[in-house]
Amino acid sequence: MDEIVFAYDKEKGEAFLKRLLGRKPLFTCVIGTTETAKIPGISAAGKNPEITHYTPPADVELLLLGRCECIPSVPVTPEGIPTPALITRVALKLAEIPAIVVSGGLKVRPQVPFIELGGSPGKDIRTGNAVDNAGKVMEKAIIVGENLAKTVDYLVVGESVPGGTTTALGVLLAMGVAAEGKVSSSMPSNPHKLKIETVKAGLEASNIKFGALANNPLKAISCVGDPVMPAFAGLVMGAAGEVPVLMAGGTQMSAILAIIKALKPEVLDNLAIGTTRWIISDKKADIVSLVKQIAPVPVLAVNLDFSSSKFEGLKAYEAGAVKEGVGAGGACIAAILKSMGAISTGEIFVEIEKAYSQLIHSDLR
Amino acid sequence: MDEIVFAYDKEKGEAFLKRLLGRKPLFTCVIGTTETAKIPGISAAGKNPEITHYTPPADVELLLLGRCECIPSVPVTPEGIPTPALITRVALKLAEIPAIVVSGGLKVRPQVPFIELGGSPGKDIRTGNAVDNAGKVMEKAIIVGENLAKTVDYLVVGESVPGGTTTALGVLLAMGVAAEGKVSSSMPSNPHKLKIETVKAGLEASNIKFGALANNPLKAISCVGDPVMPAFAGLVMGAAGEVPVLMAGGTQMSAILAIIKALKPEVLDNLAIGTTRWIISDKKADIVSLVKQIAPVPVLAVNLDFSSSKFEGLKAYEAGAVKEGVGAGGACIAAILKSMGAISTGEIFVEIEKAYSQLIHSDLR
Repeated sequence: MDEIVFAYDKEKGEAFLKRLLGRKPLFTCVIGTTETAKIPGISAAGKNPEITHYTPPADVELLLLGRCECIPSVPVTPEGIPTPALITRVALKLAEIPAIVVSGGLKVRPQVPFIELGGSPGKDIRTGNAVDNAGKVMEKAIIVGENLAKTVDYLVVGESVPGGTTTALGVLLAMGVAAEGKVSSSMPSNPHKLKIETVKAGLEASNIKFGALANNPLKAISCVGDPVMPAFAGLVMGAAGEVPVLMAGGTQMSAILAIIKALKPEVLDNLAIGTTRWIISDKKADIVSLVKQIAPVPVLAVNLDFSSSKFEGLKAYEAGAVKEGVGAGGACIAAILKSMGAISTGEIFVEIEKAYSQLIHSDLR
Repeated sequence: MDEIVFAYDKEKGEAFLKRLLGRKPLFTCVIGTTETAKIPGISAAGKNPEITHYTPPADVELLLLGRCECIPSVPVTPEGIPTPALITRVALKLAEIPAIVVSGGLKVRPQVPFIELGGSPGKDIRTGNAVDNAGKVMEKAIIVGENLAKTVDYLVVGESVPGGTTTALGVLLAMGVAAEGKVSSSMPSNPHKLKIETVKAGLEASNIKFGALANNPLKAISCVGDPVMPAFAGLVMGAAGEVPVLMAGGTQMSAILAIIKALKPEVLDNLAIGTTRWIISDKKADIVSLVKQIAPVPVLAVNLDFSSSKFEGLKAYEAGAVKEGVGAGGACIAAILKSMGAISTGEIFVEIEKAYSQLIHSDLR
């Protein structure tokens, strides 16, 4: 299946795909907002930093309703590139994969149903005090994961949290993963310097040295993480005791992996990371190096190609804009697998073109 | 299977059970609180009227955790009879049936995960203005039902809302169902007079004549219903388009049925009501008369018998205390069916005795 590329550990990756082929998945999307995302230049998940609070709720509204309710149009980058939620929606719809939204902590609530875990929005990691109640939120997420695992054959978990690669960098450094210059970005020009400065300010404020929290991921999240992390990791740990879990995201997934390795290493064999080709071919980041340092978990990437798109907004993905988010890569992989390959990346692309065209036209009305 | 009694439409009921036998269910519990429950003498779902706000969250905490967090011990009636959540927990655990909690509108939030639909707690129906945003909550619940239906073979939907038979009476009368003296009660002595007075005050305040809202269930809910109704009905309507749904509850289910008949009659064939023997043998209520007036939906009852219990708190069920709630009857039916009868009412009873004994002893510590 050359629709899915093996970026790390092909053998394990092929075995993992075989276990999912033709089986029934559930897609979950964990959302959260942070003050970190409002630092100018950190996140392109919104037209401007202020509006990043609306991006995760708008993403899941698009996912479940096909339109956004909390903002007038779909989330875009400052350059107008549309959210990857568009890709996720198309993939799930084509394959009739159900979706459930989980909140890690939100400033703005979506106008669609979501699972509440009692979390709060994330604060600015430069305070060294980023996330409240990480442990409680994780406990509740574990319960959700355990219960959802009894409904389907496997779980796909995606996320939407602006500034998420910066908070991932924070947790990775606190836990001793050499991650400087390796996390990805929703911008073609990855602002590594700004991210590192931001994270270092947080680590200093909380007096954490590199690797000091290798065995204390909850403290790492609390100091320099984001509210999606405890929810995401809890969901995965709860479900992966029973069924395989495809962690759908880019370099942020390595932070989740580090958290899980510290808390429940026995489930690592039940995990894979599912992402997009844009992430694994990103020259300004290195997901494989990050994952290799943590655990031998396969990294799979869907071979989506937007180079022939009629729309500049989608073509921009080929130039490194956006790349991943809202579990886009993993959702496509699940759609291909559920349909035993009947749904192809080509078909997904055609449907994305149609959906984007409809969105543009409804925006013009 | 004499473990399950057919109270109405045996033929349809047997056909329905056959469709579920050996299949994979998901249990959902819709919870809500109301000011109506605080009218003295209306509800026994709590030690005193004030504490009824804690009963639904405590019920689902018991369900998912095996202990309550928001109150020090399990919910009891003023006489100390324990919540039926105990029955539900035992049945689901025995049969390894997953559970998801849905909030219709709560004054007190549970310390477990739940699906948020944006609803508010219910007001006193005597104001004639009981539930806010019923339509919006129902829309969101439909989305949840549609998605959950894609994960399992069938859905079981239970509820916990103190004062729920009074609000059911309100909606039934507004919709033209002759329900006076027919709704059940968590007390052995059913306070029909108080319920009717309460409902009539609400109908007068909102200027609604008997049957005037037969085709406008959302208005009936808004005026004299409770916040569980739009969530419960939406969940059922969303799921029953695709899979069978067992509506797990007592006479309140007739109000839900009337709502669904008015809004989506085409799914009625996919529904049954699952309850307890204590409900169908209740001389002070008449579930069959209520259901017959609305739609030919089978009524099934689990043949649980607590007469040989070592505990007065459980024996009291045989004298008409509590009777049903938190989907207890439906959860037992689902456990029996999932296990193809390997789990019996006898085994469920033995496990309930054990669980209750543990609860009593942990309370004494």
